[in-house]
Amino acid sequence: MTSPDPGTKWWGWGPAERQPELSTAQAELLEAELGATQATPPVELDQVTLDEPRSLPETVLGAVASDAVLTAKEDRVRHAAGQSYPDLIRLRSGELPDAPDAVLLPASAGEVAAVLTACAAERVAVVPFGGGTSVVGGIDPHRAGFERLICLDMSRMRDVEVDRRSLTARLGPGLTGPEAEAALARADVTLGHHPQSFEYATIGGFAATRSAGQASSGYGRFDALVVSARLTTPVGELATLETPHTAAGPALRELILGSEGVLGVITEVGVRVRPVPEARRHEAWMAADFESGLEIVRELAQLGVSPDVVRLSDRDETRLSLAMSASDGLARRAFDGYLRARRRSDGCILIFGWDGDRESVSRRRSLAARVIRHGDGAYLGQAPGRAWEHGRFAGPLLRETLLDHGIFVETLETSHTWSRLGELYAAVAAAIRSTLEAQGTPGLVLCHVSHLYPDGASLYFTFMARRRIGDELEQWRAVKTAACEAIVGAGGTITHHHAVGRDHAPYMAAEIGELGLEALRAVKQRLDPVGIMNPGKLIDPAKDGA
Amino acid sequence: MTSPDPGTKWWGWGPAERQPELSTAQAELLEAELGATQATPPVELDQVTLDEPRSLPETVLGAVASDAVLTAKEDRVRHAAGQSYPDLIRLRSGELPDAPDAVLLPASAGEVAAVLTACAAERVAVVPFGGGTSVVGGIDPHRAGFERLICLDMSRMRDVEVDRRSLTARLGPGLTGPEAEAALARADVTLGHHPQSFEYATIGGFAATRSAGQASSGYGRFDALVVSARLTTPVGELATLETPHTAAGPALRELILGSEGVLGVITEVGVRVRPVPEARRHEAWMAADFESGLEIVRELAQLGVSPDVVRLSDRDETRLSLAMSASDGLARRAFDGYLRARRRSDGCILIFGWDGDRESVSRRRSLAARVIRHGDGAYLGQAPGRAWEHGRFAGPLLRETLLDHGIFVETLETSHTWSRLGELYAAVAAAIRSTLEAQGTPGLVLCHVSHLYPDGASLYFTFMARRRIGDELEQWRAVKTAACEAIVGAGGTITHHHAVGRDHAPYMAAEIGELGLEALRAVKQRLDPVGIMNPGKLIDPAKDGA
Repeated sequence: MTSPDPGTKWWGWGPAERQPELSTAQAELLEAELGATQATPPVELDQVTLDEPRSLPETVLGAVASDAVLTAKEDRVRHAAGQSYPDLIRLRSGELPDAPDAVLLPASAGEVAAVLTACAAERVAVVPFGGGTSVVGGIDPHRAGFERLICLDMSRMRDVEVDRRSLTARLGPGLTGPEAEAALARADVTLGHHPQSFEYATIGGFAATRSAGQASSGYGRFDALVVSARLTTPVGELATLETPHTAAGPALRELILGSEGVLGVITEVGVRVRPVPEARRHEAWMAADFESGLEIVRELAQLGVSPDVVRLSDRDETRLSLAMSASDGLARRAFDGYLRARRRSDGCILIFGWDGDRESVSRRRSLAARVIRHGDGAYLGQAPGRAWEHGRFAGPLLRETLLDHGIFVETLETSHTWSRLGELYAAVAAAIRSTLEAQGTPGLVLCHVSHLYPDGASLYFTFMARRRIGDELEQWRAVKTAACEAIVGAGGTITHHHAVGRDHAPYMAAEIGELGLEALRAVKQRLDPVGIMNPGKLIDPAKDGA
Repeated sequence: MTSPDPGTKWWGWGPAERQPELSTAQAELLEAELGATQATPPVELDQVTLDEPRSLPETVLGAVASDAVLTAKEDRVRHAAGQSYPDLIRLRSGELPDAPDAVLLPASAGEVAAVLTACAAERVAVVPFGGGTSVVGGIDPHRAGFERLICLDMSRMRDVEVDRRSLTARLGPGLTGPEAEAALARADVTLGHHPQSFEYATIGGFAATRSAGQASSGYGRFDALVVSARLTTPVGELATLETPHTAAGPALRELILGSEGVLGVITEVGVRVRPVPEARRHEAWMAADFESGLEIVRELAQLGVSPDVVRLSDRDETRLSLAMSASDGLARRAFDGYLRARRRSDGCILIFGWDGDRESVSRRRSLAARVIRHGDGAYLGQAPGRAWEHGRFAGPLLRETLLDHGIFVETLETSHTWSRLGELYAAVAAAIRSTLEAQGTPGLVLCHVSHLYPDGASLYFTFMARRRIGDELEQWRAVKTAACEAIVGAGGTITHHHAVGRDHAPYMAAEIGELGLEALRAVKQRLDPVGIMNPGKLIDPAKDGA
């Protein structure tokens, strides 16, 4: 079987036709910042060489419908990598180390259970696959000693059941963000979870990775929206009650959340929903500098008046995003003049957004504005806020344009308490910058704060440099390692919302300790005694450096 | 060693001199409701017979300071039971099945580790002990096959370290509620966690049992206030990072929370704190009936305008609490007249409370009042609210007065989604009522809602009947079993905030499934391979019915 055309590129994010082109001004700006780069388009599909698929036992293949087994080359390629920088490099170069022997599409929790039982009996590794949007190697088909490996694509499990009175919904794991929202909208409710991966990522993936959305400062991270979960494991089902809270022991829901497919397959997620907001407002302000911007957002969070969307860019991210923005010469000169007049030419941009009924948006906005003004923020109006909203999912598309232009572009994220956020910011930025320089490819290091808590916030770094053609993975690994070590050294978390996958697994001992790892391994040993579930991820760091 | 006089009764809650007496009117009212009862005072301490303590290995005793080992009779009795109804009956009758062989008071996590290592090597069972306020048999010295058992009293571990900028604090597990608040107040912050057990329960106990406070609708349950935790186990320490959030796998913090001493001893809890509120307002309203009261509180929760304290009593609880209240004849007649005029004579009382700066209390109160009025609530003023606040910790004291009068009085709690809360309420109330009747002791069954969530709420039942003297535990078990089965049958949680202990352990399979239990047992096996930690609790249901 071949699946219907998904309309997206096999080698990366979204449809080719939505990928933006760089304007001459943008290309010149990047060359001025990074030096001259070399165009590096992806190879053609027929240039991708895959191993022949190993044949799979009938008990495995027969556990799903006959039209639910995909073995065509393109299907295997599409399930052979996520969207991490190493993944994209491997896809674009056609050098895929491996691909699943088949892709199975179960239609129910019962079919998932049948597949897992058969795979455990036959020692076939299983990689659960939602939208394929992992940026940390979370769905790489790593065999870890298993001869055969299948990918379990959850896209057929898309049930939706809304409890309007309790404002909850049971969602199938295979629903993408837009599919879930469309179904919820028919009951006049919304989940409000909008990560940058929203268009392609799935409910099961959000749960398995503890995703955070762009409005998480208001709506809460995905894990905070989950009220119950079902996990099908090779030895049976783990399910939590649909009650608003319980004191009945350790929270098993919190063991399922973040389990990244290594314990089993999430087959249903119960979530909190809200009425569809009648009003929405986005706007921008300019803080004098990053420090005063941090003070503003800390006050907002600690006073309980945080907007739903909050984003504070540091000076370099502010400078680059303004320079890359497409506004025409006249409007731009007026804007620059305004900033100069307000002495904010080298300030830090703040994007805020509010959702809700008109009265609540207006009330909350005015409470927040008081704090922002007190922190010396200068109002920039709604236009830049709307521009941000318009482009909120476009980052991954632009990233591939940059890849086409021979640019190394990567993101990583962490979080810390307000007391130690500045120290973490400085350490990570310095580590990335100096490692890029040491590689002979000095680059841009940009950062923003995008998720607030009363006790701290996240930091999201984007960095760019010239690609060392042919040497991309070494270049990436050097910077990634330096950044991760800086995070660990400053006591930050190794990941605020990208999850662990393969890339962060070596740092889990620093995150939760050896005994914490052992506790998780004990659970895995009980639920997945053969070890077939998503090998090499989360609690099983790569020994081979691959 | 004997500990200094703790100022509390050895056989129950708080100091004897704070225990209220029943007025003639109250006694008559209870007799009219329950029939004539018989005075049943507790025995004297010298009538309590304990087994001789088994001698303990020097490696265990030597792990703490020499003044940190208590073996006097009163110390052993004080650590032989919590405050559950069966515990109190056993204490008052002097029929303690067992008591710890010694009580050890470690002064640091290092001493805890040394004690646990020695106990594991010598097969000595360990019961961690905070304030001794468990109402579910959580600290009963159940030996489960271990010949020797010690109680680890955490009262010497009371460090406090405040991070004012991040609004967090590291708290020692042995701090009682008032001790923690007093220390935090010196940094002008508060935890805001005020369960009924506040005066005696400890930080470690709040964490180990997922406690909920009277203001949890606003401040959040204790587990939601915890940002990090340290657990000393017999094989090492489990500690989570002090970052505001992480996507690094399943949340180990949520494995430590609710672990009830069966995995190890909580030695530090990192919590969110808030500035001490400048204003506080409590007030009461009267809903037409329980259903319309539920609609009011659901609206408050789902619109995000819930007061910090919310309490909706059902008709019987409203009737009894008004009848038991001490207001004099004239004020009472005026109050009754007001209720009649508003057609609320058989309504359901609502208590609300707000904390914060004056402006926020006033703003939030006015948003809530709009909802309450729309739901047809009648305002009763601040006096009943203040009366509730004044008596908020007095319940356990009154309970013992009732026990002295030969009354069986017990509480239990659960939660469910708004859609199924009415069904759960009816099923549990009917189960308690009919079982009391079947026992020949028809009683009063009262209920209130006291913790709101957008998706549902808790139900807290109090029931009273004549004690079947000499047959108390059988009488209790019949009602408890019927209530628990009704909860499980309606899909509610077996406990919203009292935790599991011995009493709810048989229902854990219904709560989290056999596989869920197995997952927790796998963790216990890894962290406590000898099984010395708090045997018989949470995941180890009693086989003997004891």
